[in-house]
Amino acid sequence: MAEISIGVVGIGGRMGITLARQVAGTPGCRLAGGTERPGSPMLGRDIGEVTGLGPLGLKVSDDALPLFAQADAVIDFTSPAATRHHAQLAAQGKTVLVIGTTGLEEEHFAALREAARHAPIVQGYNMSLGVNLVAGLVRQVAGLLDAEWDIEIVEMHHRMKVDAPSGTAILFGEKAAQGRGRELADLADRGRDGVCGPRQKGDIGFASLRGGNVVGEHTVIFAADNERVELSHKAADRGIFARGAVQAALWARGKAPGLYDMDDVLGFR
Amino acid sequence: MAEISIGVVGIGGRMGITLARQVAGTPGCRLAGGTERPGSPMLGRDIGEVTGLGPLGLKVSDDALPLFAQADAVIDFTSPAATRHHAQLAAQGKTVLVIGTTGLEEEHFAALREAARHAPIVQGYNMSLGVNLVAGLVRQVAGLLDAEWDIEIVEMHHRMKVDAPSGTAILFGEKAAQGRGRELADLADRGRDGVCGPRQKGDIGFASLRGGNVVGEHTVIFAADNERVELSHKAADRGIFARGAVQAALWARGKAPGLYDMDDVLGFR
Amino acid sequence: MAEISIGVVGIGGRMGITLARQVAGTPGCRLAGGTERPGSPMLGRDIGEVTGLGPLGLKVSDDALPLFAQADAVIDFTSPAATRHHAQLAAQGKTVLVIGTTGLEEEHFAALREAARHAPIVQGYNMSLGVNLVAGLVRQVAGLLDAEWDIEIVEMHHRMKVDAPSGTAILFGEKAAQGRGRELADLADRGRDGVCGPRQKGDIGFASLRGGNVVGEHTVIFAADNERVELSHKAADRGIFARGAVQAALWARGKAPGLYDMDDVLGFR
Amino acid sequence: MAEISIGVVGIGGRMGITLARQVAGTPGCRLAGGTERPGSPMLGRDIGEVTGLGPLGLKVSDDALPLFAQADAVIDFTSPAATRHHAQLAAQGKTVLVIGTTGLEEEHFAALREAARHAPIVQGYNMSLGVNLVAGLVRQVAGLLDAEWDIEIVEMHHRMKVDAPSGTAILFGEKAAQGRGRELADLADRGRDGVCGPRQKGDIGFASLRGGNVVGEHTVIFAADNERVELSHKAADRGIFARGAVQAALWARGKAPGLYDMDDVLGFR
Repeated sequence: MAEISIGVVGIGGRMGITLARQVAGTPGCRLAGGTERPGSPMLGRDIGEVTGLGPLGLKVSDDALPLFAQADAVIDFTSPAATRHHAQLAAQGKTVLVIGTTGLEEEHFAALREAARHAPIVQGYNMSLGVNLVAGLVRQVAGLLDAEWDIEIVEMHHRMKVDAPSGTAILFGEKAAQGRGRELADLADRGRDGVCGPRQKGDIGFASLRGGNVVGEHTVIFAADNERVELSHKAADRGIFARGAVQAALWARGKAPGLYDMDDVLGFR
Repeated sequence: MAEISIGVVGIGGRMGITLARQVAGTPGCRLAGGTERPGSPMLGRDIGEVTGLGPLGLKVSDDALPLFAQADAVIDFTSPAATRHHAQLAAQGKTVLVIGTTGLEEEHFAALREAARHAPIVQGYNMSLGVNLVAGLVRQVAGLLDAEWDIEIVEMHHRMKVDAPSGTAILFGEKAAQGRGRELADLADRGRDGVCGPRQKGDIGFASLRGGNVVGEHTVIFAADNERVELSHKAADRGIFARGAVQAALWARGKAPGLYDMDDVLGFR
Repeated sequence: MAEISIGVVGIGGRMGITLARQVAGTPGCRLAGGTERPGSPMLGRDIGEVTGLGPLGLKVSDDALPLFAQADAVIDFTSPAATRHHAQLAAQGKTVLVIGTTGLEEEHFAALREAARHAPIVQGYNMSLGVNLVAGLVRQVAGLLDAEWDIEIVEMHHRMKVDAPSGTAILFGEKAAQGRGRELADLADRGRDGVCGPRQKGDIGFASLRGGNVVGEHTVIFAADNERVELSHKAADRGIFARGAVQAALWARGKAPGLYDMDDVLGFR
Repeated sequence: MAEISIGVVGIGGRMGITLARQVAGTPGCRLAGGTERPGSPMLGRDIGEVTGLGPLGLKVSDDALPLFAQADAVIDFTSPAATRHHAQLAAQGKTVLVIGTTGLEEEHFAALREAARHAPIVQGYNMSLGVNLVAGLVRQVAGLLDAEWDIEIVEMHHRMKVDAPSGTAILFGEKAAQGRGRELADLADRGRDGVCGPRQKGDIGFASLRGGNVVGEHTVIFAADNERVELSHKAADRGIFARGAVQAALWARGKAPGLYDMDDVLGFR
């Protein structure tokens, strides 16, 4: 298959640099260029220097239009407002757009749906292939096993994380509830402490560990009498999100316009 | 739904007793009766006494025909020859038959296929719902993740187990190979020791731990750079095989005649 | 070494039966007899029948005095009031007494100390060798590793357990605090949920999972940057408490009078 | 306590750079300088530039003598021949020397013992605090628990590792054998595969997993009937060896001359 050229918007940030390196390091992919917001001190510098990839002859630009016109795909982990603009450019250029931006609200999704009439757009809050795979398995297993199987979700993250449970733990909980045709809000059992009484049938329990610089580990336990099924995901580096984004771009090339998610990329539908 | 009456052939053995207790303890199930082989010292004794369930007014018989005529379903963990005979009785009575007998050969399967034209028959070497569920997940995940994800299977069993890897570990390996469209024999990497060189891409590694009286624990690891997905099954008691058999009987009630397996029971097709 | 004869007070209860079987099944041990409280329907029945060990020619009695006079050791998992009385009998008979009774208060400990002037008495709330071993290791490791190592304790128990964290998890937390020369009350971080802010240095976190019929699993995690040390105990059957009690009796034979605990039995002093 | 100045010999290599960064990043430590072998292209360059720490005004030198004369401590992960020379310089300068060099033979140890008459020298093949801690615990636990507790060691490393079991797994096996007063060679059970018969009492089993880019995970399992104790170490980055080396240097400051190991640093004697 012909090489795919991939651009990165927001290329000067920590995630942008990781994405650029992932593109450059993936066989069959070529870095098409990158942008930063107007006023960024990175503008005009060589992308290879900014990203530590060595001289590339590509300059950081504040104009995304030529990038969308020229690249096969663009990856976007920026901000909701910027992402809305990028979606319009993708629609114009019929360019694949992979979106990992967080904090999208209904107005942004409306813009994505509009743009997705003209270009293939993949959107996801967690781009890790493994996390999305496990999420799909959790929904499936929760649907196959009845409520005699108690569901517990335990996660560990680094000591600086300020909230609990993690977003990924909640995602897994939502998938488990979906599998059972229920709402997570009705089933979640969080922060168990003290005399809580026996476990309520059908509940989904959450437990959060914090320590060291652990990137993220999640286990979903299905426990029946004398038997347990456990599904785990362990992340050792944030680069797995960049890898998933590049795989999403490769998957989306040549697909019909539409708004896709990581389940589509994984072939889980 | 109306109560289902379930018989147990070979009710005087260790597995038969476990099965009878499982039937009696499952809501919506009633123990229909039980048989033993001619000459067994159990013949004529009250089944409730043999199984520790308390007086039931049912005698252990050596004639399976009335049991098949009267019960909705029969569970059979006996011997290949006896199972062939039971399959004929199931066909005559149009009775659900759940078979956990080991050591079946082609001639026995031929008899099962013949009988399955007239009655629903569920056959499996490992009746645990959890093990069969994990086996299905392993096949699925191996098919979704490419060979950048190394597959390793590790199991632990009690100190008396004489062979390694376990049958269930091999089952998981076969499912993983199927998921990749390959033969396990070409991929299996067993008994790693000494200077073996780097891991071969696509291999499926096996490791076996032995100790204490561990009933059986299996983990399948999919390891990519910086990311791992792990699927585990942990058995704490052999009673889980009886539970799976009873669930298979419940599932098969009212099904069309045919030869089914645990994937069917789980809804994995 | 000569055989040791061991009696069991409260032999008709669930734990008493387990203890009697453990004594009978341990090489070098002989069951000396057993008692029940006045009025028990077990009185006068053969102990072998009550415990399922087969006829022994020993009757369940309500008089513990002859048992203490004749046995080398007695094991007691009864009630605080009964245990106080048994301690007096142990002092009179200079008989080893192993106590697993829960709910002892200062008045009962005072009686134990008094009796321990005349007989070796081993007391512990959790008689499992493994649990006590891990407790000792936790104290030691917490003392060797500085507060750059975050301590987290996670446990899983069956769905019927009404309180969290488990008593053993709290024991491990106390040992960790001791190792650091601190009070657990000042460090415990329980029931993490919501926006809690970053982890406080030196805290000891607790997380509790509930599901199935899990007997008890505990892991203590020491997490520094890029490195974790984990100590786990997994119990598969409550019989491990009986085994620990019998080993305590074997250890205490011939020891000087005194009040001992499981650290002494393990040789952790 | 006054700041400690620490030099790094072999500062231009991958481990040297990691060591320099660890020194610079540890409160109470100051980087005293660094050397490379004669002919290295690094000679004369600013150490801050070589190590990515930013300008330091220290040049890479090929003369270790002034470094040993001036620094409080020197860390050495070089080669056996170079290490022998450095030990002489440490003796002359009465400078703390921390040695992580691998492949030392008896002649090199003889030189270390000679030098250790004049300076505190800490030597270890694995400088990770956590690994050495777990090694000590394994010896201790193996000594406390009898041969009813089966010992199994399982490790996982990245796919490029060419040998199995890992050196650390073998270290743990040796510690377990020591704890039992036995030789590992008589007990090791490696590469279990096929019909091996039941487990031999007292054996120490090894199992090796390979996959992804896992830095190193080790678990030692002690399995009795119904009870397991497990000790694990998980490394997420090779930087933990540098951290252990710096902690060894801090520990050794002010100690009497002598040849020490990581058990001394940990306070395990």
